[in-house]
Amino acid sequence: MAVNYPNGQRYQGMKSAVKRPQVRQQTFGNRGMTFEQMINDSNDYYLSKGVAVIHKKPTPIQIVKVDYPKRSAATIKEAYFKQASTTDYNGVYQGKYLDFEAKETQNKTSFPLSNIHQHQIDHMQQCLAQQGLVFLLVYFSTLKECYLLEANDLLMWWNQKDLGKKSIPYKYFQDHVHKVPIKIAPRIAYLEIIDTVFRIGENDDKQ
Amino acid sequence: MAVNYPNGQRYQGMKSAVKRPQVRQQTFGNRGMTFEQMINDSNDYYLSKGVAVIHKKPTPIQIVKVDYPKRSAATIKEAYFKQASTTDYNGVYQGKYLDFEAKETQNKTSFPLSNIHQHQIDHMQQCLAQQGLVFLLVYFSTLKECYLLEANDLLMWWNQKDLGKKSIPYKYFQDHVHKVPIKIAPRIAYLEIIDTVFRIGENDDKQ
Repeated sequence: MAVNYPNGQRYQGMKSAVKRPQVRQQTFGNRGMTFEQMINDSNDYYLSKGVAVIHKKPTPIQIVKVDYPKRSAATIKEAYFKQASTTDYNGVYQGKYLDFEAKETQNKTSFPLSNIHQHQIDHMQQCLAQQGLVFLLVYFSTLKECYLLEANDLLMWWNQKDLGKKSIPYKYFQDHVHKVPIKIAPRIAYLEIIDTVFRIGENDDKQ
Repeated sequence: MAVNYPNGQRYQGMKSAVKRPQVRQQTFGNRGMTFEQMINDSNDYYLSKGVAVIHKKPTPIQIVKVDYPKRSAATIKEAYFKQASTTDYNGVYQGKYLDFEAKETQNKTSFPLSNIHQHQIDHMQQCLAQQGLVFLLVYFSTLKECYLLEANDLLMWWNQKDLGKKSIPYKYFQDHVHKVPIKIAPRIAYLEIIDTVFRIGENDDKQ
């Protein structure tokens, strides 16, 4: 027999009352890990080894309504996604400010610039002006290859976008961009590239 | 006459359909501004003048349920606050990594250490180990005075907490801590203190 509430809504059974928040399953094996998970994993590794302090910024949210039920955690009942004003990752490595965005593409022949947004470009330029170490990590997921593209290089391509070049060819990455080692730990060993490109640890006079 | 939907739910009228998210009003006058607003205001000023790139990190949220209504923005219907793993502010100033927490107290005689959490202390220590410029901005709101307490100084007090010293006396701030100028723009001129304390802009050899 169907049982309805007086207002006509269908009775859903007690199961719905004890429904738990759905936590996204993370796979830490070799397969099934998104690029974001691989980066976060690498940052956890770097942090645990005292190598660097790099965190992903939380997604910016405009909170409108919060419930404070007795005997349980505050629940956000209404909120909206806000436009971010920065890149996703930043932190400190041997006194240097690091700032980067991480993007994944299934494309095998090029990296579409539509993956990048104007606010990220603006933020990168601001950080470059403050002498930050700024870059983009690109993961070609089908090829399982990761590249570290320096921000100045990205800006060059971005500025050619209006001339009709809407993507960076894979060949360009192969020939001109730093390939990031993919290992067991850290998964995405991007700090090895930072050491080389920005000569971290060398005497300032030699730069 | 009351009009109900077939399922018995009350018809709410068209007004609810066009209800807009409530955006928190910000006051940019001299009074009514929280310390957080004053800091954000100062960071906006520094960014607009090309002086530094410092942002407040968004509040970390665990999103459980999102609605995607047609013809309007995605609405988060269920989410929970997560424990942060860092301080609230970081960024770059003349190549240096800056990291700080900002705290406000109405107390006139001391700053209670209960305002600080263990995860913030841990993060500060990690950033110090990477040679970041790390500090705490304390605002005595009743006195309208702001101080920049270096992280090493804060750690000294934090480590004495278990000996019964649960707060830092106002007298200590007066005698030993850098007082931050409060101005029209930037409101909280904390980078002036950074210049002095960490000798930004001077030749590295002189440090």
